[in-house]
Amino acid sequence: AVRALRRSGAPLAGDVLLAGVVSEEDGGLGAFATLRRGHRADACIIPEPTGLDVVPAAAGALTFRLRVPGLAAHAARRAVGVSAVEKFWPLWQELATLESRRNADIDPLMERWSPAYPLSIGIVRAGEWASTVPDSLVAEGRLGVALGEGVEDARAALEQAVATACARDPWLAERPAIVEWSGGQFAPGRLPSDSDLGERMHRAHAAAGGRPPETYGVPYGTDLRLLTGLGGIATLHYGPGDAALAHARDEAVPIDEVLTCAGALALLALDICGVG
Amino acid sequence: AVRALRRSGAPLAGDVLLAGVVSEEDGGLGAFATLRRGHRADACIIPEPTGLDVVPAAAGALTFRLRVPGLAAHAARRAVGVSAVEKFWPLWQELATLESRRNADIDPLMERWSPAYPLSIGIVRAGEWASTVPDSLVAEGRLGVALGEGVEDARAALEQAVATACARDPWLAERPAIVEWSGGQFAPGRLPSDSDLGERMHRAHAAAGGRPPETYGVPYGTDLRLLTGLGGIATLHYGPGDAALAHARDEAVPIDEVLTCAGALALLALDICGVG
Repeated sequence: AVRALRRSGAPLAGDVLLAGVVSEEDGGLGAFATLRRGHRADACIIPEPTGLDVVPAAAGALTFRLRVPGLAAHAARRAVGVSAVEKFWPLWQELATLESRRNADIDPLMERWSPAYPLSIGIVRAGEWASTVPDSLVAEGRLGVALGEGVEDARAALEQAVATACARDPWLAERPAIVEWSGGQFAPGRLPSDSDLGERMHRAHAAAGGRPPETYGVPYGTDLRLLTGLGGIATLHYGPGDAALAHARDEAVPIDEVLTCAGALALLALDICGVG
Repeated sequence: AVRALRRSGAPLAGDVLLAGVVSEEDGGLGAFATLRRGHRADACIIPEPTGLDVVPAAAGALTFRLRVPGLAAHAARRAVGVSAVEKFWPLWQELATLESRRNADIDPLMERWSPAYPLSIGIVRAGEWASTVPDSLVAEGRLGVALGEGVEDARAALEQAVATACARDPWLAERPAIVEWSGGQFAPGRLPSDSDLGERMHRAHAAAGGRPPETYGVPYGTDLRLLTGLGGIATLHYGPGDAALAHARDEAVPIDEVLTCAGALALLALDICGVG
Protein backbone atom coordinates (compact mmCIF):
# COMPACT_ATOMS: atom_id res chain seq x y z
CA ALA A 1 0.00 0.00 0.00
CA VAL A 2 2.79 2.42 0.89
CA ARG A 3 4.66 1.55 -2.30
CA ALA A 4 1.50 2.12 -4.37
CA LEU A 5 1.01 5.52 -2.76
CA ARG A 6 4.60 6.49 -3.62
CA ARG A 7 4.31 5.27 -7.17
CA SER A 8 1.01 7.11 -7.62
CA GLY A 9 2.80 10.36 -6.94
CA ALA A 10 -0.22 11.58 -5.00
CA PRO A 11 0.93 14.51 -2.79
CA LEU A 12 -0.40 13.37 0.63
CA ALA A 13 -1.26 16.17 3.05
CA GLY A 14 -0.19 13.99 6.00
CA ASP A 15 2.38 11.34 6.86
CA VAL A 16 2.00 7.58 6.52
CA LEU A 17 4.03 5.65 9.08
CA LEU A 18 4.82 1.98 8.48
CA ALA A 19 5.79 0.40 11.79
CA GLY A 20 6.99 -3.19 11.81
CA VAL A 21 7.00 -4.30 15.45
CA VAL A 22 8.19 -7.41 17.20
CA SER A 23 6.93 -9.39 20.16
CA GLU A 24 3.19 -9.04 19.61
CA GLU A 25 2.71 -12.65 20.73
CA ASP A 26 4.41 -12.45 24.07
CA GLY A 27 3.45 -9.05 25.38
CA GLY A 28 3.76 -6.44 22.64
CA LEU A 29 7.14 -4.97 23.56
CA GLY A 30 7.64 -3.76 19.98
CA ALA A 31 4.42 -1.75 19.92
CA PHE A 32 5.16 -0.55 23.45
CA ALA A 33 8.64 0.65 22.45
CA THR A 34 7.29 2.37 19.32
CA LEU A 35 4.80 4.32 21.43
CA ARG A 36 7.39 5.02 24.11
CA ARG A 37 9.65 6.60 21.48
CA GLY A 38 6.83 9.06 20.90
CA HIS A 39 5.36 7.83 17.62
CA ARG A 40 1.67 8.69 17.39
CA ALA A 41 -0.90 8.81 14.57
CA ASP A 42 -4.51 9.83 13.95
CA ALA A 43 -5.36 6.27 12.94
CA CYS A 44 -3.72 2.87 12.71
CA ILE A 45 -4.55 -0.35 10.88
CA ILE A 46 -3.06 -3.64 12.10
CA PRO A 47 -3.13 -6.04 9.12
CA GLU A 48 -3.85 -9.00 11.41
CA PRO A 49 -5.63 -11.76 9.46
CA THR A 50 -9.34 -10.92 9.63
CA GLY A 51 -10.42 -12.27 6.25
CA LEU A 52 -10.78 -8.55 5.35
CA ASP A 53 -13.43 -8.09 7.99
CA VAL A 54 -13.23 -4.94 10.11
CA VAL A 55 -12.19 -5.68 13.68
CA PRO A 56 -12.29 -2.72 16.05
CA ALA A 57 -11.84 -4.65 19.30
CA ALA A 58 -9.80 -7.42 20.89
CA ALA A 59 -10.54 -9.18 24.16
CA GLY A 60 -7.78 -9.59 26.73
CA ALA A 61 -6.07 -12.71 28.00
CA LEU A 62 -4.29 -13.27 31.31
CA THR A 63 -2.03 -16.24 31.96
CA PHE A 64 -2.36 -17.73 35.43
CA ARG A 65 -0.92 -20.55 37.48
CA LEU A 66 -2.76 -22.50 40.18
CA ARG A 67 -0.93 -24.40 42.89
CA VAL A 68 -3.10 -27.01 44.58
CA PRO A 69 -1.81 -28.77 47.71
CA GLY A 70 -2.22 -32.44 48.62
CA LEU A 71 -0.61 -34.74 51.17
CA ALA A 72 1.69 -37.55 50.06
CA ALA A 73 1.08 -41.13 51.17
CA HIS A 74 1.83 -44.62 49.89
CA ALA A 75 -0.84 -45.46 47.32
CA ALA A 76 -1.63 -48.62 49.32
CA ARG A 77 -2.82 -46.29 52.09
CA ARG A 78 -4.21 -43.60 49.85
CA ALA A 79 -6.92 -42.59 52.33
CA VAL A 80 -4.16 -41.46 54.73
CA GLY A 81 -3.05 -38.94 52.09
CA VAL A 82 -4.87 -36.25 50.14
CA SER A 83 -4.72 -36.32 46.36
CA ALA A 84 -3.91 -32.93 44.84
CA VAL A 85 -5.60 -34.21 41.65
CA GLU A 86 -8.81 -34.84 43.55
CA LYS A 87 -8.61 -31.38 45.11
CA PHE A 88 -8.22 -29.84 41.64
CA TRP A 89 -11.70 -31.02 40.56
CA PRO A 90 -13.76 -28.54 42.61
CA LEU A 91 -11.52 -25.76 41.29
CA TRP A 92 -11.99 -26.97 37.72
CA GLN A 93 -15.74 -27.00 38.16
CA GLU A 94 -15.81 -23.56 39.75
CA LEU A 95 -13.68 -22.19 36.91
CA ALA A 96 -16.16 -23.63 34.39
CA THR A 97 -18.96 -21.90 36.28
CA LEU A 98 -16.97 -18.68 36.29
CA GLU A 99 -16.47 -18.91 32.52
CA SER A 100 -20.23 -19.37 32.01
CA ARG A 101 -20.99 -16.40 34.22
CA ARG A 102 -18.45 -14.22 32.45
CA ASN A 103 -20.00 -15.11 29.10
CA ALA A 104 -23.65 -14.71 30.06
CA ASP A 105 -23.93 -11.11 28.91
CA ILE A 106 -21.40 -10.18 26.28
CA ASP A 107 -20.80 -7.23 24.01
CA PRO A 108 -22.62 -7.55 20.65
CA LEU A 109 -19.23 -7.27 18.91
CA MET A 110 -18.26 -10.63 20.47
CA GLU A 111 -21.45 -12.59 19.85
CA ARG A 112 -19.98 -14.82 17.16
CA TRP A 113 -17.61 -16.48 19.63
CA SER A 114 -18.71 -19.19 22.00
CA PRO A 115 -17.37 -18.61 24.52
CA ALA A 116 -16.26 -15.05 23.78
CA TYR A 117 -14.00 -14.94 26.84
CA PRO A 118 -12.64 -18.46 27.26
CA LEU A 119 -11.11 -19.71 30.47
CA SER A 120 -8.88 -22.61 29.48
CA ILE A 121 -6.50 -24.85 31.45
CA GLY A 122 -3.53 -25.60 29.21
CA ILE A 123 -1.10 -27.44 31.49
CA VAL A 124 -1.56 -29.79 34.42
CA ARG A 125 1.32 -31.36 36.34
CA ALA A 126 0.76 -33.49 39.43
CA GLY A 127 2.68 -36.12 41.34
CA GLU A 128 5.98 -37.87 40.90
CA TRP A 129 5.33 -41.58 41.23
CA ALA A 130 2.45 -43.85 40.22
CA SER A 131 2.34 -45.37 43.68
CA THR A 132 2.39 -42.19 45.77
CA VAL A 133 -0.63 -39.99 46.46
CA PRO A 134 0.26 -36.71 44.67
CA ASP A 135 1.01 -33.93 47.14
CA SER A 136 0.97 -31.11 44.61
CA LEU A 137 -0.75 -30.10 41.39
CA VAL A 138 0.22 -27.13 39.26
CA ALA A 139 -2.14 -25.97 36.50
CA GLU A 140 -1.53 -23.17 34.04
CA GLY A 141 -4.27 -21.51 32.10
CA ARG A 142 -5.59 -18.49 30.31
CA LEU A 143 -8.41 -16.21 31.39
CA GLY A 144 -10.24 -14.19 28.75
CA VAL A 145 -10.87 -10.53 29.66
CA ALA A 146 -14.07 -8.89 28.45
CA LEU A 147 -14.15 -5.79 26.27
CA GLY A 148 -14.15 -2.84 28.61
CA GLU A 149 -13.25 -4.93 31.66
CA GLY A 150 -10.36 -3.90 33.85
CA VAL A 151 -7.53 -6.40 34.12
CA GLU A 152 -7.62 -6.13 37.90
CA ASP A 153 -11.35 -6.90 37.90
CA ALA A 154 -10.78 -10.01 35.80
CA ARG A 155 -8.00 -11.17 38.12
CA ALA A 156 -10.19 -10.56 41.15
CA ALA A 157 -13.00 -12.62 39.58
CA LEU A 158 -10.71 -15.62 39.11
CA GLU A 159 -9.15 -15.26 42.54
CA GLN A 160 -12.63 -15.05 44.06
CA ALA A 161 -13.80 -18.19 42.23
CA VAL A 162 -10.74 -20.10 43.47
CA ALA A 163 -11.32 -18.80 47.00
CA THR A 164 -14.99 -19.81 46.84
CA ALA A 165 -14.17 -23.35 45.74
CA CYS A 166 -11.47 -23.64 48.40
CA ALA A 167 -13.79 -22.41 51.14
CA ARG A 168 -16.24 -25.21 50.35
CA ASP A 169 -13.63 -27.95 50.77
CA PRO A 170 -12.35 -28.72 54.29
CA TRP A 171 -8.82 -29.49 53.07
CA LEU A 172 -8.55 -26.47 50.76
CA ALA A 173 -10.23 -24.20 53.28
CA GLU A 174 -7.19 -24.71 55.52
CA ARG A 175 -4.64 -24.59 52.69
CA PRO A 176 -6.15 -22.60 49.81
CA ALA A 177 -4.85 -23.08 46.30
CA ILE A 178 -2.49 -20.29 45.28
CA VAL A 179 -3.15 -18.13 42.20
CA GLU A 180 -0.19 -16.57 40.39
CA TRP A 181 -0.36 -14.29 37.36
CA SER A 182 2.40 -15.67 35.16
CA GLY A 183 3.22 -15.30 31.47
CA GLY A 184 1.37 -13.06 29.01
CA GLN A 185 -0.95 -10.41 30.49
CA PHE A 186 -3.07 -8.85 27.74
CA ALA A 187 -5.65 -6.18 28.49
CA PRO A 188 -8.65 -5.86 26.17
CA GLY A 189 -8.72 -2.99 23.67
CA ARG A 190 -11.28 -1.19 21.56
CA LEU A 191 -11.58 1.55 19.01
CA PRO A 192 -13.31 4.53 20.71
CA SER A 193 -16.99 4.63 19.83
CA ASP A 194 -16.74 8.21 18.55
CA SER A 195 -14.15 7.26 15.94
CA ASP A 196 -15.17 7.21 12.27
CA LEU A 197 -12.27 4.91 11.32
CA GLY A 198 -14.62 1.93 10.95
CA GLU A 199 -16.78 3.66 8.36
CA ARG A 200 -13.72 4.93 6.50
CA MET A 201 -12.27 1.41 6.47
CA HIS A 202 -15.54 0.02 5.11
CA ARG A 203 -15.58 2.63 2.34
CA ALA A 204 -11.94 2.06 1.38
CA HIS A 205 -12.50 -1.69 1.33
CA ALA A 206 -15.52 -1.33 -0.94
CA ALA A 207 -13.66 1.07 -3.22
CA ALA A 208 -10.84 -1.48 -3.49
CA GLY A 209 -13.34 -4.03 -4.75
CA GLY A 210 -13.85 -6.01 -1.56
CA ARG A 211 -17.05 -7.84 -0.72
CA PRO A 212 -19.07 -6.37 2.17
CA PRO A 213 -17.09 -7.04 5.34
CA GLU A 214 -18.41 -7.92 8.76
CA THR A 215 -17.53 -6.03 11.92
CA TYR A 216 -16.74 -7.83 15.18
CA GLY A 217 -14.19 -8.17 17.94
CA VAL A 218 -11.71 -11.03 18.30
CA PRO A 219 -11.29 -13.17 21.41
CA TYR A 220 -7.51 -12.88 21.68
CA GLY A 221 -5.12 -10.18 22.79
CA THR A 222 -3.31 -8.06 20.19
CA ASP A 223 -1.26 -4.85 19.98
CA LEU A 224 -4.53 -2.99 19.41
CA ARG A 225 -4.85 -2.63 23.19
CA LEU A 226 -1.53 -0.78 23.39
CA LEU A 227 -2.21 1.48 20.40
CA THR A 228 -5.71 2.44 21.60
CA GLY A 229 -4.97 2.36 25.33
CA LEU A 230 -1.42 3.57 25.86
CA GLY A 231 -1.14 5.41 22.53
CA GLY A 232 -4.63 6.87 22.27
CA ILE A 233 -4.64 6.03 18.56
CA ALA A 234 -7.81 4.98 16.73
CA THR A 235 -6.92 1.45 15.65
CA LEU A 236 -8.52 -1.41 13.71
CA HIS A 237 -7.55 -4.90 12.61
CA TYR A 238 -8.06 -5.40 8.91
CA GLY A 239 -6.01 -7.91 6.98
CA PRO A 240 -5.91 -10.90 4.65
CA GLY A 241 -6.25 -14.52 5.74
CA ASP A 242 -7.92 -16.61 8.39
CA ALA A 243 -6.65 -16.24 11.97
CA ALA A 244 -7.71 -19.83 12.61
CA LEU A 245 -4.59 -20.84 10.63
CA ALA A 246 -2.34 -18.71 12.82
CA HIS A 247 0.34 -20.55 14.82
CA ALA A 248 -0.41 -23.69 12.83
CA ARG A 249 1.29 -25.73 10.14
CA ASP A 250 0.94 -24.32 6.60
CA GLU A 251 -0.01 -20.87 7.89
CA ALA A 252 -0.88 -18.83 4.77
CA VAL A 253 -2.99 -15.96 3.40
CA PRO A 254 -4.74 -15.80 -0.01
CA ILE A 255 -2.97 -13.56 -2.53
CA ASP A 256 -6.21 -11.97 -3.75
CA GLU A 257 -6.97 -10.84 -0.21
CA VAL A 258 -3.45 -9.41 0.09
CA LEU A 259 -4.03 -7.35 -3.08
CA THR A 260 -7.45 -6.13 -1.97
CA CYS A 261 -6.02 -5.23 1.43
CA ALA A 262 -3.15 -3.25 -0.12
CA GLY A 263 -5.60 -1.34 -2.31
CA ALA A 264 -7.91 -0.59 0.57
CA LEU A 265 -5.08 0.60 2.81
CA ALA A 266 -3.76 2.91 0.09
CA LEU A 267 -7.23 4.37 -0.40
CA LEU A 268 -7.69 4.76 3.36
CA ALA A 269 -4.39 6.65 3.60
CA LEU A 270 -5.51 9.01 0.84
CA ASP A 271 -8.82 9.48 2.66
CA ILE A 272 -7.32 10.18 6.07
CA CYS A 273 -4.30 12.21 5.01
CA GLY A 274 -6.03 14.10 2.26
CA VAL A 275 -4.28 15.19 -0.93
CA GLY A 276 -2.78 18.59 -1.35
CA ALA B 1 17.57 -65.74 65.63
CA VAL B 2 19.95 -67.94 63.58
CA ARG B 3 22.89 -66.86 65.72
CA ALA B 4 20.95 -67.69 68.90
CA LEU B 5 20.12 -71.13 67.53
CA ARG B 6 23.82 -71.78 66.77
CA ARG B 7 24.95 -70.55 70.16
CA SER B 8 22.32 -72.67 71.89
CA GLY B 9 23.94 -75.80 70.44
CA ALA B 10 20.47 -77.28 69.89
CA PRO B 11 20.85 -80.10 67.33
CA LEU B 12 18.12 -79.10 64.81
CA ALA B 13 16.56 -81.98 62.86
CA GLY B 14 16.10 -79.72 59.83
CA ASP B 15 17.84 -76.84 58.05
CA VAL B 16 17.31 -73.14 58.63
CA LEU B 17 17.90 -71.06 55.53
CA LEU B 18 18.55 -67.35 55.87
CA ALA B 19 17.88 -65.69 52.51
CA GLY B 20 18.64 -62.01 52.11
CA VAL B 21 17.05 -60.94 48.85
CA VAL B 22 17.12 -57.73 46.86
CA SER B 23 14.54 -55.90 44.76
CA GLU B 24 11.45 -56.57 46.82
CA GLU B 25 10.22 -53.06 46.11
CA ASP B 26 10.36 -53.12 42.36
CA GLY B 27 9.23 -56.61 41.45
CA GLY B 28 10.88 -59.16 43.72
CA LEU B 29 13.71 -60.33 41.44
CA GLY B 30 15.78 -61.45 44.45
CA ALA B 31 13.07 -63.75 45.78
CA PHE B 32 12.35 -64.90 42.24
CA ALA B 33 16.01 -65.79 41.64
CA THR B 34 16.26 -67.58 45.00
CA LEU B 35 13.30 -69.77 44.06
CA ARG B 36 14.57 -70.26 40.53
CA ARG B 37 17.84 -71.60 41.89
CA GLY B 38 15.77 -74.30 43.55
CA HIS B 39 15.71 -73.18 47.16
CA ARG B 40 12.57 -74.38 48.92
CA ALA B 41 11.40 -74.70 52.53
CA ASP B 42 8.49 -76.03 54.57
CA ALA B 43 7.86 -72.57 55.96
CA CYS B 44 9.13 -69.03 55.58
CA ILE B 45 8.87 -65.88 57.69
CA ILE B 46 9.42 -62.49 56.08
CA PRO B 47 10.38 -60.09 58.88
CA GLU B 48 8.54 -57.23 57.22
CA PRO B 49 7.50 -54.61 59.81
CA THR B 50 4.16 -55.77 61.17
CA GLY B 51 4.46 -54.50 64.73
CA LEU B 52 4.84 -58.22 65.58
CA ASP B 53 1.36 -58.95 64.28
CA VAL B 54 0.94 -62.08 62.18
CA VAL B 55 0.34 -61.28 58.52
CA PRO B 56 -0.49 -64.26 56.33
CA ALA B 57 -1.62 -62.34 53.23
CA ALA B 58 -0.69 -59.39 51.04
CA ALA B 59 -2.87 -57.76 48.42
CA GLY B 60 -1.50 -57.13 44.95
CA ALA B 61 -0.76 -53.88 43.16
CA LEU B 62 -0.57 -53.22 39.44
CA THR B 63 0.93 -50.06 37.97
CA PHE B 64 -0.94 -48.66 35.00
CA ARG B 65 -0.74 -45.76 32.61
CA LEU B 66 -3.71 -44.05 30.96
CA ARG B 67 -3.35 -42.05 27.77
CA VAL B 68 -6.26 -39.68 27.18
CA PRO B 69 -6.55 -37.89 23.84
CA GLY B 70 -7.65 -34.30 23.24
CA LEU B 71 -7.45 -31.90 20.31
CA ALA B 72 -5.17 -28.87 20.43
CA ALA B 73 -6.53 -25.39 19.73
CA HIS B 74 -5.65 -21.83 20.67
CA ALA B 75 -7.08 -21.20 24.12
CA ALA B 76 -8.93 -18.17 22.69
CA ARG B 77 -10.93 -20.65 20.60
CA ARG B 78 -11.02 -23.41 23.18
CA ALA B 79 -14.39 -24.73 22.02
CA VAL B 80 -12.78 -25.64 18.67
CA GLY B 81 -10.44 -27.98 20.55
CA VAL B 82 -11.03 -30.78 23.04
CA SER B 83 -9.33 -30.61 26.42
CA ALA B 84 -7.65 -33.87 27.41
CA VAL B 85 -7.99 -32.69 31.04
CA GLU B 86 -11.74 -32.40 30.63
CA LYS B 87 -11.87 -35.87 29.08
CA PHE B 88 -9.96 -37.27 32.04
CA TRP B 89 -12.80 -36.39 34.46
CA PRO B 90 -15.25 -39.12 33.40
CA LEU B 91 -12.40 -41.65 33.63
CA TRP B 92 -11.47 -40.39 37.10
CA GLN B 93 -15.06 -40.73 38.26
CA GLU B 94 -15.45 -44.19 36.78
CA LEU B 95 -12.23 -45.30 38.44
CA ALA B 96 -13.56 -44.05 41.79
CA THR B 97 -16.72 -46.07 41.19
CA LEU B 98 -14.62 -49.08 40.30
CA GLU B 99 -12.62 -48.75 43.52
CA SER B 100 -15.85 -48.63 45.57
CA ARG B 101 -17.17 -51.70 43.81
CA ARG B 102 -13.95 -53.60 44.32
CA ASN B 103 -14.03 -52.81 48.03
CA ALA B 104 -17.70 -53.55 48.66
CA ASP B 105 -17.13 -57.14 49.72
CA ILE B 106 -13.68 -57.81 51.05
CA ASP B 107 -11.92 -60.64 52.79
CA PRO B 108 -12.18 -60.43 56.62
CA LEU B 109 -8.37 -60.39 56.77
CA MET B 110 -8.46 -56.99 55.02
CA GLU B 111 -11.26 -55.32 56.97
CA ARG B 112 -9.01 -52.94 58.87
CA TRP B 113 -8.05 -51.09 55.69
CA SER B 114 -10.28 -48.52 54.05
CA PRO B 115 -10.06 -49.02 51.19
CA ALA B 116 -8.43 -52.45 51.29
CA TYR B 117 -7.65 -52.38 47.58
CA PRO B 118 -6.92 -48.75 46.72
CA LEU B 119 -6.99 -47.42 43.20
CA SER B 120 -4.84 -44.31 43.21
CA ILE B 121 -3.70 -41.90 40.50
CA GLY B 122 -0.15 -40.83 41.32
CA ILE B 123 0.93 -38.81 38.29
CA VAL B 124 -0.92 -36.55 35.84
CA ARG B 125 0.75 -34.77 32.95
CA ALA B 126 -1.24 -32.77 30.41
CA GLY B 127 -0.54 -30.03 27.92
CA GLU B 128 2.48 -27.98 26.98
CA TRP B 129 1.40 -24.35 27.04
CA ALA B 130 -0.99 -22.33 29.18
CA SER B 131 -2.68 -20.88 26.11
CA THR B 132 -3.20 -24.10 24.14
CA VAL B 133 -6.01 -26.58 24.70
CA PRO B 134 -4.17 -29.72 25.90
CA ASP B 135 -4.24 -32.46 23.29
CA SER B 136 -2.97 -35.22 25.55
CA LEU B 137 -3.10 -36.32 29.18
CA VAL B 138 -1.06 -39.14 30.65
CA ALA B 139 -1.96 -40.47 34.10
CA GLU B 140 -0.12 -43.14 36.05
CA GLY B 141 -1.65 -45.02 38.90
CA ARG B 142 -1.83 -48.12 41.02
CA LEU B 143 -4.62 -50.67 41.14
CA GLY B 144 -4.99 -52.82 44.27
CA VAL B 145 -5.60 -56.53 43.59
CA ALA B 146 -7.84 -58.44 45.98
CA LEU B 147 -6.73 -61.50 47.92
CA GLY B 148 -7.45 -64.47 45.71
CA GLU B 149 -8.07 -62.35 42.63
CA GLY B 150 -6.28 -63.16 39.40
CA VAL B 151 -4.05 -60.40 38.06
CA GLU B 152 -5.68 -60.75 34.65
CA ASP B 153 -9.13 -60.32 36.21
CA ALA B 154 -8.02 -57.14 37.97
CA ARG B 155 -6.55 -55.77 34.73
CA ALA B 156 -9.76 -56.64 32.87
CA ALA B 157 -11.84 -54.82 35.50
CA LEU B 158 -9.85 -51.62 35.07
CA GLU B 159 -9.84 -51.89 31.28
CA GLN B 160 -13.59 -52.45 31.33
CA ALA B 161 -14.18 -49.41 33.56
CA VAL B 162 -12.10 -47.24 31.20
CA ALA B 163 -13.97 -48.65 28.20
CA THR B 164 -17.33 -47.98 29.89
CA ALA B 165 -16.44 -44.37 30.63
CA CYS B 166 -15.12 -43.87 27.09
CA ALA B 167 -18.25 -45.38 25.52
CA ARG B 168 -20.40 -42.78 27.31
CA ASP B 169 -18.46 -39.83 25.90
CA PRO B 170 -18.81 -39.02 22.18
CA TRP B 171 -15.19 -37.91 21.85
CA LEU B 172 -13.70 -40.85 23.78
CA ALA B 173 -16.06 -43.33 22.14
CA GLU B 174 -14.28 -42.59 18.85
CA ARG B 175 -10.79 -42.40 20.38
CA PRO B 176 -10.78 -44.45 23.57
CA ALA B 177 -8.20 -43.79 26.25
CA ILE B 178 -5.37 -46.33 26.14
CA VAL B 179 -4.50 -48.47 29.17
CA GLU B 180 -0.93 -49.71 29.55
CA TRP B 181 0.39 -51.95 32.33
CA SER B 182 3.65 -50.28 33.21
CA GLY B 183 5.99 -50.51 36.20
CA GLY B 184 5.53 -52.88 39.15
CA GLN B 185 3.06 -55.74 38.72
CA PHE B 186 2.42 -57.44 42.07
CA ALA B 187 0.00 -60.34 42.38
CA PRO B 188 -1.71 -60.91 45.72
CA GLY B 189 -0.48 -63.75 47.92
CA ARG B 190 -1.75 -65.74 50.87
CA LEU B 191 -0.73 -68.48 53.24
CA PRO B 192 -2.75 -71.61 52.31
CA SER B 193 -5.70 -72.06 54.65
CA ASP B 194 -4.62 -75.58 55.60
CA SER B 195 -1.26 -74.39 56.90
CA ASP B 196 -0.65 -74.39 60.64
CA LEU B 197 2.16 -71.82 60.35
CA GLY B 198 -0.07 -69.09 61.75
CA GLU B 199 -0.77 -70.98 64.96
CA ARG B 200 2.88 -71.95 65.33
CA MET B 201 3.89 -68.31 64.87
CA HIS B 202 1.37 -67.21 67.50
CA ARG B 203 2.73 -69.79 69.96
CA ALA B 204 6.37 -68.90 69.32
CA HIS B 205 5.55 -65.20 69.72
CA ALA B 206 3.80 -65.83 73.04
CA ALA B 207 6.66 -68.02 74.23
CA ALA B 208 9.10 -65.23 73.39
CA GLY B 209 7.14 -62.92 75.65
CA GLY B 210 5.18 -61.03 73.06
CA ARG B 211 1.79 -59.49 73.69
CA PRO B 212 -1.14 -61.15 71.87
CA PRO B 213 -0.73 -60.32 68.18
CA GLU B 214 -3.44 -59.57 65.66
CA THR B 215 -3.80 -61.40 62.37
CA TYR B 216 -4.61 -59.58 59.13
CA GLY B 217 -3.49 -59.02 55.56
CA VAL B 218 -1.65 -55.95 54.27
CA PRO B 219 -2.78 -53.82 51.34
CA TYR B 220 0.57 -53.76 49.51
CA GLY B 221 2.50 -56.24 47.43
CA THR B 222 5.43 -58.17 48.98
CA ASP B 223 7.64 -61.16 48.21
CA LEU B 224 5.08 -63.32 50.05
CA ARG B 225 3.24 -63.75 46.75
CA LEU B 226 6.32 -65.27 45.09
CA LEU B 227 7.15 -67.56 48.01
CA THR B 228 3.57 -68.85 48.38
CA GLY B 229 2.66 -68.74 44.70
CA LEU B 230 5.74 -69.61 42.68
CA GLY B 231 7.56 -71.39 45.53
CA GLY B 232 4.63 -73.19 47.15
CA ILE B 233 6.11 -72.30 50.56
CA ALA B 234 3.93 -71.54 53.60
CA THR B 235 4.88 -67.92 54.28
CA LEU B 236 4.02 -65.21 56.80
CA HIS B 237 5.04 -61.65 57.53
CA TYR B 238 6.07 -61.16 61.13
CA GLY B 239 8.52 -58.46 62.09
CA PRO B 240 9.32 -55.45 64.25
CA GLY B 241 8.26 -51.90 63.51
CA ASP B 242 5.45 -49.98 61.84
CA ALA B 243 5.12 -50.27 58.06
CA ALA B 244 3.59 -46.78 58.02
CA LEU B 245 7.15 -45.48 58.57
CA ALA B 246 8.45 -47.42 55.58
CA HIS B 247 9.89 -45.37 52.70
CA ALA B 248 9.77 -42.29 54.89
CA ARG B 249 12.25 -40.09 56.70
CA ASP B 250 13.55 -41.49 60.02
CA GLU B 251 12.45 -45.03 59.15
CA ALA B 252 13.14 -47.10 62.29
CA VAL B 253 12.05 -50.14 64.31
CA PRO B 254 11.89 -50.43 68.15
CA ILE B 255 14.75 -52.48 69.63
CA ASP B 256 12.45 -54.36 72.04
CA GLU B 257 10.39 -55.59 69.10
CA VAL B 258 13.58 -56.69 67.32
CA LEU B 259 14.57 -58.76 70.37
CA THR B 260 11.11 -60.32 70.76
CA CYS B 261 11.07 -61.10 67.04
CA ALA B 262 14.49 -62.79 67.19
CA GLY B 263 13.38 -64.91 70.14
CA ALA B 264 10.11 -65.88 68.46
CA LEU B 265 11.86 -66.84 65.21
CA ALA B 266 14.40 -68.99 67.04
CA LEU B 267 11.58 -70.77 68.90
CA LEU B 268 9.63 -71.21 65.66
CA ALA B 269 12.67 -72.79 63.99
CA LEU B 270 13.01 -75.21 66.91
CA ASP B 271 9.30 -76.01 66.64
CA ILE B 272 9.31 -76.61 62.88
CA CYS B 273 12.65 -78.36 62.49
CA GLY B 274 12.41 -80.36 65.66
CA VAL B 275 15.43 -81.26 67.82
CA GLY B 276 17.26 -84.55 67.43
